[in-house]
Amino acid sequence: MSGAARDINVGLIGLGTVGTGVARLLLEQGDRIRNRLGVNVNLKAIADLDVSHDRGLRLPPGLLSGDVSRVLDDPEIDVVVELIGGRDAAKRFILKALEGGKHVVTANKALLAEDGKPLFEASARYGKDLLFEASVAGGIPIIRTLKEGLAANRILQIQGILNGTCNYILTKMTEEGSDFDTVLAEAQKLGYAEADPTFDVDGHDTAHKVAILTALSFGVDVDFSRLYVEGIRHITPLDIQLAGEFGYRVKLLGMCRCEGGDIESRVHPTMIPESHMLATVNLAYNALLVVGDAVGKIMLYGAGAGEMPTASAVVADIIELARNIRHNVSGRVPSLAFEQTSLKERPIKPMDDVESRYYFRFSALDRPGVLSKISGILGNRRISIASVIQKARRYRGAVPIVMLTHRALERNVQAALAEIDRLEEVRNKTMMIRVEDEDELVESEP
Amino acid sequence: MSGAARDINVGLIGLGTVGTGVARLLLEQGDRIRNRLGVNVNLKAIADLDVSHDRGLRLPPGLLSGDVSRVLDDPEIDVVVELIGGRDAAKRFILKALEGGKHVVTANKALLAEDGKPLFEASARYGKDLLFEASVAGGIPIIRTLKEGLAANRILQIQGILNGTCNYILTKMTEEGSDFDTVLAEAQKLGYAEADPTFDVDGHDTAHKVAILTALSFGVDVDFSRLYVEGIRHITPLDIQLAGEFGYRVKLLGMCRCEGGDIESRVHPTMIPESHMLATVNLAYNALLVVGDAVGKIMLYGAGAGEMPTASAVVADIIELARNIRHNVSGRVPSLAFEQTSLKERPIKPMDDVESRYYFRFSALDRPGVLSKISGILGNRRISIASVIQKARRYRGAVPIVMLTHRALERNVQAALAEIDRLEEVRNKTMMIRVEDEDELVESEP
Repeated sequence: MSGAARDINVGLIGLGTVGTGVARLLLEQGDRIRNRLGVNVNLKAIADLDVSHDRGLRLPPGLLSGDVSRVLDDPEIDVVVELIGGRDAAKRFILKALEGGKHVVTANKALLAEDGKPLFEASARYGKDLLFEASVAGGIPIIRTLKEGLAANRILQIQGILNGTCNYILTKMTEEGSDFDTVLAEAQKLGYAEADPTFDVDGHDTAHKVAILTALSFGVDVDFSRLYVEGIRHITPLDIQLAGEFGYRVKLLGMCRCEGGDIESRVHPTMIPESHMLATVNLAYNALLVVGDAVGKIMLYGAGAGEMPTASAVVADIIELARNIRHNVSGRVPSLAFEQTSLKERPIKPMDDVESRYYFRFSALDRPGVLSKISGILGNRRISIASVIQKARRYRGAVPIVMLTHRALERNVQAALAEIDRLEEVRNKTMMIRVEDEDELVESEP
Repeated sequence: MSGAARDINVGLIGLGTVGTGVARLLLEQGDRIRNRLGVNVNLKAIADLDVSHDRGLRLPPGLLSGDVSRVLDDPEIDVVVELIGGRDAAKRFILKALEGGKHVVTANKALLAEDGKPLFEASARYGKDLLFEASVAGGIPIIRTLKEGLAANRILQIQGILNGTCNYILTKMTEEGSDFDTVLAEAQKLGYAEADPTFDVDGHDTAHKVAILTALSFGVDVDFSRLYVEGIRHITPLDIQLAGEFGYRVKLLGMCRCEGGDIESRVHPTMIPESHMLATVNLAYNALLVVGDAVGKIMLYGAGAGEMPTASAVVADIIELARNIRHNVSGRVPSLAFEQTSLKERPIKPMDDVESRYYFRFSALDRPGVLSKISGILGNRRISIASVIQKARRYRGAVPIVMLTHRALERNVQAALAEIDRLEEVRNKTMMIRVEDEDELVESEP
């Protein structure tokens, strides 16, 4: 227990949704935080370009300004919280804060995933911590769990539902049988999707989070450029319904996995069995299923976004830093869970080399010999069929032939589908969804 | 980043199931731990009364002895891990370790719940940390999550499935329709239940965990003596089936809750709706649903017991202490999540004053007027009926009349049932199970 119980001063850059939640917690919950910490956490300055919008906060006069230097240049500020998002300005501010001897909290997954290296290096160089619990899965304390709670484990795999917008849309498509565009429009009306939903529905947001999780799990640098990313725009209610007939749900899954030294890291729509722990995670909720060699399966579930859940994660980081400052330590836990010197250069396996099970829906004319042609092409590429449904009913002028395969190589699947889609009997591009069964890595019940 | 990267030395007392797992992780995973920590964690001495049993470990010669002083009196040992369980010896060893300037890790929930105060006081007095992640829910990092991940939150409620034996038995009774004794015997054969199952099936083990969670959640001292505890021996397959007809599952739930300054803390069989996050937690798995004012609902799920999951939690604590030792800090996070000086004296509300919904199964003779008599008694005690099922079929010579009530006061329910059970038409003691709906505290989806 070290001495001087001085206040910890926090400066906040960005007073949007999450920033407002953070300010609310720090301004309104001071007593509770002091009861946990033994010191006051004092919100000393806020910088935002919009100083007039009423956010429903009772801000002391002079606290909010449009001038970021009142946060970055104030020598009394110990912790800078970056919540403006985006890349260039955020990076500049974080680097300036670290250089200036301040610890930093950020929720900026895009920046950490795509350009995190110089930030983590600066954190190590200046001996100031850079925490980012809110960058993945909002209020769910997954970063802490990987860095500390599961520190005794070799992480084998993480599967996550990490984007509330996509999960909301897929849940509604499943429940209502509506198509993507209809549900997206509803979700936009209700505030579950942005006016420009690209970033969410094309999988980029999930991919940023998976890049961070991959680094934390396997002791490698964050390597966003090599992630395979596929969104949910092409998923149809028919595929969701057919998946259901096989006993599966369709989810946008972010996954990383380490098997025999090979790292897989990818984001795509995935069919998971109805009995899978993640299958019942619905609407805007997030969840992560983590497999560790000692702990077995762990699931964490909660709100992955929103003002107060995300603010809960940001303020947990502020409290951690306040504890460190009070005890005069930094660098207690490495930014990426492993000592900088032990980080390995291990590239992510190219998607072509990944093995998976697959769902195919072929749109073929109802002619004799079609199934035989298709299965011939699959057989030539060593893709073995586990089950087939051929429907009498038509969909967009063709008869759907639906298959689940055994494990096959992505490269072979892509080649086979290209060949099949060139058949004259095949009318539309074949629909393909990858399948993950729960227990490919772990068999035993505890 | 502080200097001298010397080894951290660990001494282990107790080489039973969990102790063996801890030794296994420390002996076999040294490289990985060093990659996270930057220093070696060295298992320096093990004390156990049985020095000859083969545990499948390759122990260096001289490491294991029957002499606890080789752990407690070795000045080079930094961290003592207590895994013998029980009360008196464990308490003596932990106190001696703290006095001797060693940090302590324990999984001993009974000791912490029933006699934790002097241990936490000794930890504060000697400035040495006492960590206990493994004491609740095995490998699930719930202690860390409450102390750090959710530190920005006022915790409103925790509901937990915290005993794998009970959950295994209730799951099998639900799936197979078998009675308690049959399933218990099976569970004993399979190693899911102890030869003497009292401690588990009567709810004491869950209650110890709930006592610890209550203290961590609400900033109060651990107060085991006031917890209400009821086990699962009296649950019949008929009740499980009838619960199913109402859309509910029966689980042994540990709960704590803070509403308007009042603290509830209790363990009893509970009917939860099939849609409840905890309803699908089956077999020996554990899970906790935590509600915080900022984060909303969070669920953590995983293996609550077993050699390696529990060892995962113990070694996470050892790694935390190694980080603290390396950076020369202690007392960084208070033992019970709040500063000792801010802990409040708030008694747990007596069970009589608790409000709940209830399930009743009356065993009444099939005579006219019985239902009217029963509902009259309930009405007089202000217990209002939400739904009734009267079954034609007989069970043990009487006709079951089954009811779900609206919220009522436990004191009134106990008085009404005593009165009803004295009616001459009522043949057996009325079965009562408390009902918890998921969203009594939180309504909103994220």
